[in-house]
Amino acid sequence: MSNLAAYIREVPDFPKPGVRFYDITTLMQDPKGFRQALDGMEKYVRSCNPDVLVAIESRGFIFGAALADRLNIGLVPARKIGKLPSDKISQEYTLEYGTDHVEMHSDAISSDQRVVVVDDLIATGGTVAATCKLIERLGGEVVGISTVIGLIFLPWQDLLKDYDVNFLISFDSE
Amino acid sequence: MSNLAAYIREVPDFPKPGVRFYDITTLMQDPKGFRQALDGMEKYVRSCNPDVLVAIESRGFIFGAALADRLNIGLVPARKIGKLPSDKISQEYTLEYGTDHVEMHSDAISSDQRVVVVDDLIATGGTVAATCKLIERLGGEVVGISTVIGLIFLPWQDLLKDYDVNFLISFDSE
Repeated sequence: MSNLAAYIREVPDFPKPGVRFYDITTLMQDPKGFRQALDGMEKYVRSCNPDVLVAIESRGFIFGAALADRLNIGLVPARKIGKLPSDKISQEYTLEYGTDHVEMHSDAISSDQRVVVVDDLIATGGTVAATCKLIERLGGEVVGISTVIGLIFLPWQDLLKDYDVNFLISFDSE
Repeated sequence: MSNLAAYIREVPDFPKPGVRFYDITTLMQDPKGFRQALDGMEKYVRSCNPDVLVAIESRGFIFGAALADRLNIGLVPARKIGKLPSDKISQEYTLEYGTDHVEMHSDAISSDQRVVVVDDLIATGGTVAATCKLIERLGGEVVGISTVIGLIFLPWQDLLKDYDVNFLISFDSE
């Protein structure tokens, strides 16, 4: 556990009672914290040698955009349903109650591109796994998953067992 | 009009019939386009000498994050209602039919901080104007507004007449 964890604000009972929310806004608004997180992610992402990054709406955009700029590669958004304006593909994933979808433009990934998926946090892994499926349906190869935080008490390990996952901070209990 | 406009995909009838959507995903996914847009915004934002950037959810996050990293300053999100977990303030703005709100954390801006607001596009200016009000309610000074695209056929000029607005590409008719 790096001292990066000190920049994360833990908010109890958000978005609902019994859930602890790990708030990255306190990290982003401190240039030292933001830069330290980006430096750590950049090191991992460069080691994956990607052609393009896919960032997951909306907090993933924050880290994905700065990393794409640092590596001088393109950035593709994976978005909530109904947000992308052009031809797109959609992937369902399971929530605690019910299901949701994540979408990508059909022309966002070229065949055989090496892709790293970027988000702020891995919890259940459902959105990340669905995003990986979208990338593979478009012919890309997911060569890494990079986040700031990993919640290691939640069961994403099985869902993402085929992928290399890297995070900078882990929290191990609710 | 710079050649940057060639990276923007124009999608007719999105999100509803009669509206033309200016899609920045085609710019983001091309490293040359993304970098050219960031270079142009960086030049303007540096000239404002800000202490912090405020990025508007969610496409504003993409440009705001990379710019905050380039300037080594903090990034504060202005978000849709219900997304921020801690103590926050809210500002209403008018839509074509009805109203909506934008929110910021109460501790996001310190008194007398110089702030530049970042988004992808200015259309009606309602969200941007509400974000400027939030910044001012927290004691900050809005020293500039930076976007990729300005739709100069829409009436944001009056709503934002007290602010300095900079965009890289203008579109002048629907």
